[in-house]
Amino acid sequence: MAARGRDRRRRGRGAEAAPATQRNVNYRQLRNPFPVMEVFPADQIADIHETALRTLEELGVKVLLPEARRLFAAAGARVDEASEMVFIGRDLVEAAVASAPKSIACRAGARHRDFTLELGSLVFQPGAGAPNATDLERGRRPASGQDYLEFLKLTHHFDVFQMISPQVEPQDVPTHLRHYFTTQAQMELTDKFPFFFSRGTPQVMDCFEMLAVARGLSDDDFRARPHCYTIINTNSPRTLDIPMAQGLIDFARHGQMSIITPFTLMGAMAPITVAGAITLSHAEALAALTLTQLAKPGAPVCYGTFTSNVDMKSGAPAFGTPSHFQASLAAGQLARHLGLPWRSAAGSASNANDVQAANENQFGLWGCLMAGATVIIHSAGWLEGGLTVSFEKLVCDAEVLNMVAELCAGAQAGRAEIGFDTALREVEPGGHFFATSQTMERYTTEFYEPHLHDYANFGTWAERGSVDANHRATAVWRDILANFEPPAQDQPGLDAMRDFIARRTAEGGAPPES
Amino acid sequence: MAARGRDRRRRGRGAEAAPATQRNVNYRQLRNPFPVMEVFPADQIADIHETALRTLEELGVKVLLPEARRLFAAAGARVDEASEMVFIGRDLVEAAVASAPKSIACRAGARHRDFTLELGSLVFQPGAGAPNATDLERGRRPASGQDYLEFLKLTHHFDVFQMISPQVEPQDVPTHLRHYFTTQAQMELTDKFPFFFSRGTPQVMDCFEMLAVARGLSDDDFRARPHCYTIINTNSPRTLDIPMAQGLIDFARHGQMSIITPFTLMGAMAPITVAGAITLSHAEALAALTLTQLAKPGAPVCYGTFTSNVDMKSGAPAFGTPSHFQASLAAGQLARHLGLPWRSAAGSASNANDVQAANENQFGLWGCLMAGATVIIHSAGWLEGGLTVSFEKLVCDAEVLNMVAELCAGAQAGRAEIGFDTALREVEPGGHFFATSQTMERYTTEFYEPHLHDYANFGTWAERGSVDANHRATAVWRDILANFEPPAQDQPGLDAMRDFIARRTAEGGAPPES
Repeated sequence: MAARGRDRRRRGRGAEAAPATQRNVNYRQLRNPFPVMEVFPADQIADIHETALRTLEELGVKVLLPEARRLFAAAGARVDEASEMVFIGRDLVEAAVASAPKSIACRAGARHRDFTLELGSLVFQPGAGAPNATDLERGRRPASGQDYLEFLKLTHHFDVFQMISPQVEPQDVPTHLRHYFTTQAQMELTDKFPFFFSRGTPQVMDCFEMLAVARGLSDDDFRARPHCYTIINTNSPRTLDIPMAQGLIDFARHGQMSIITPFTLMGAMAPITVAGAITLSHAEALAALTLTQLAKPGAPVCYGTFTSNVDMKSGAPAFGTPSHFQASLAAGQLARHLGLPWRSAAGSASNANDVQAANENQFGLWGCLMAGATVIIHSAGWLEGGLTVSFEKLVCDAEVLNMVAELCAGAQAGRAEIGFDTALREVEPGGHFFATSQTMERYTTEFYEPHLHDYANFGTWAERGSVDANHRATAVWRDILANFEPPAQDQPGLDAMRDFIARRTAEGGAPPES
Repeated sequence: MAARGRDRRRRGRGAEAAPATQRNVNYRQLRNPFPVMEVFPADQIADIHETALRTLEELGVKVLLPEARRLFAAAGARVDEASEMVFIGRDLVEAAVASAPKSIACRAGARHRDFTLELGSLVFQPGAGAPNATDLERGRRPASGQDYLEFLKLTHHFDVFQMISPQVEPQDVPTHLRHYFTTQAQMELTDKFPFFFSRGTPQVMDCFEMLAVARGLSDDDFRARPHCYTIINTNSPRTLDIPMAQGLIDFARHGQMSIITPFTLMGAMAPITVAGAITLSHAEALAALTLTQLAKPGAPVCYGTFTSNVDMKSGAPAFGTPSHFQASLAAGQLARHLGLPWRSAAGSASNANDVQAANENQFGLWGCLMAGATVIIHSAGWLEGGLTVSFEKLVCDAEVLNMVAELCAGAQAGRAEIGFDTALREVEPGGHFFATSQTMERYTTEFYEPHLHDYANFGTWAERGSVDANHRATAVWRDILANFEPPAQDQPGLDAMRDFIARRTAEGGAPPES
């Protein structure tokens, strides 16, 4: 709620200095303003694409779900049932790329939360999928339902997160009821675009129904456009497991969005080179994308990759490295080759919310931004290569994302901004611009005002206790949680959803499938 | 010495796993690989340039040095001696831009340290000009001669710093002898391109002579190319003080390089808008640049700006902000408009080497990189908006700069890198790539190996004491200093320089002029 904070500060100024202009920055529908960077020449990108097609044709993909193999076989792919291997011809891939939508209008719980995914648009998600949570007050622990709810509130708070991510696993909620808990929370606490895990058809159908009930959607309304999404990780190299394949099919058939993400670490489950790893990732993404289009042509699907490298001395994953950066660039070139919206990821391997964590995350972020990524996941809060999400790091990274969002708004250099008469001419050599006409008109609105960064001088900062950014972030998230108010929602819908949950819980819930 | 560190690690692997390829990354002569970003359309950049010319013609610049006013007057500028105002016609500015070299070959103390400044090349300097030093062991204190020497050794150590900067003021060295101390240290401890302050002709002439003596250069050799540089800050708005004007003249007449840097803070000593502040900065830079070319046509001069914003609530300077980023972009557009090499700056307002410090510095850095800056100053170590340089922050930021330098090297996607036969085909679904032919050939050389970032998992990291990056950086700089060896230098030259210092010291030295 950056805008609300600014209003409060403006009122604090008093009416005598009411500004003539209003600061009005939209962080909700962003366009990527950065020029795209290419790491490989076009002919090498074509070679990578060609090699990925060859990989699918000659080496094949192991597809563990029989229904998925049937879909591939019915479309003409060569399937070896004994080995569960599927060999996908380029004609199938090319048809899938052609039928996949180039622009996906995502429908949130309120119209000002809607956004469109296409090449050129820019969406951020906080770090996702961690088993642990950490903060400076309560320490590192297995994530709980309370952690899930608190992260959800923080994600809702910052406009720069346009999508909800599954930040942490609420491990104290039984697995057969967990999807009720997370879906209920998303419906009650936020009107942003929600996320559902693909852990088998029963859970996915429950989630779809809860969303439709909560938001008052008919079955046709629901299927008409994407109201939610899932993330599909292939098992690199070249394996598509049962719940992931089922998720691709279920989401596609219901018109809901899959974000496909081969998670490949160069030197471990992928070739050691950027080019080799991205070739593998591209092949796997194309296989998964093809399955969505076989399940339902035109189904909304987001191409993606998450490719970084391991430390070759220890085998440990590393993030925010030069190779990670280059992999994002290469994936962006391939996404543009396909013409599809796509996701990439930032992230950090650091074990604490420290300078390493900040620098890795921001370095990876710039790789995604300059790669033209449509959705940037793990853009805030991720530590330990995804094993933990940090409350403080989320607050710190959100500051960087806000600043990126400010850059999306651009700047002007018209006569009023250059200000020859309203600024330059008004000040003598050695003077200052605090009181020029131009400054008076703009001083409350010209600059981004941080929620975390502190500009006090050293003496003042020391008098206030020498609190570093990490510890200041604790106060920020505590304040956000203490003042959290959920957005207005349809209460009868929510009540109906709660009834549904009570009934399904009484029936025994739905355990995850694997 | 990144290369040396890698050699050590390679040897540690043992001969049985000798790699077929060698990691060989040159951090010394970098080209900027990032696409340039524009913040304003070309017609608005032309308007800014035009308004800057109008500012020089109609509003004028206050020039405190009589000799400089005489040079301007002799060339046809209108000079009002009573007010010390100089009104510079666009013909003079345009002639100066035409005669300023577009490419500057900088001569260091060894040929592998030479570099060229021109649009497209990329040079980093650590944070400069701070009165204070800080580290986690000794705390924050007024900088001393020892601090100066230690920072110089750290700057020499990291190849990614191609130029020496005046990181801290050695405040325990008397001001009339300080330039002997800093010049001697630069000649003895490093063969990188040195920096001299412009604090009056006597000090500058001393420095020139010490360099020529130490490096065995005749007067003609010395004047033939730039062997050193100075940084010239205008006093914004629109004032050029005595030592700065004198420095421009002295360096130009001796063929040495000035880097011109109007240091303008939007909303304080510059207009509150990016467009207005950059118009002022551009006008001041053009005035200073014109003076160099009047002193000696063809003198090496680097265009520059350092423009960020203040916090309008407190008036405190802020760095690494969206406005700072946009100002770098605008300055880059103007530099390309002129065709000249140029400097920009990163930096941080944080009071500690924390997440704020990391994020501000890296955010500002990307602004400079995407602006196509030739020289990026304050790229490592700067805290408190330049009041302090931190040993730990220098080490932390150098990691980021090394990763940027790695990106400068690019990547390949030829047949060997894609590796269909040497990697993709060798691994079955669900397998790993640790032992493929491609991995075996490349595992010691494929990835950047950090000096600071730690990829240990949480358990191992905790067992080792949960040391964050800031505290690990202490160990890094202590290790560098403990193992420092100066490069081979001409000993008779250094002896002669020491004799010169002894003689000049006995004569009373040279106090700074103001």
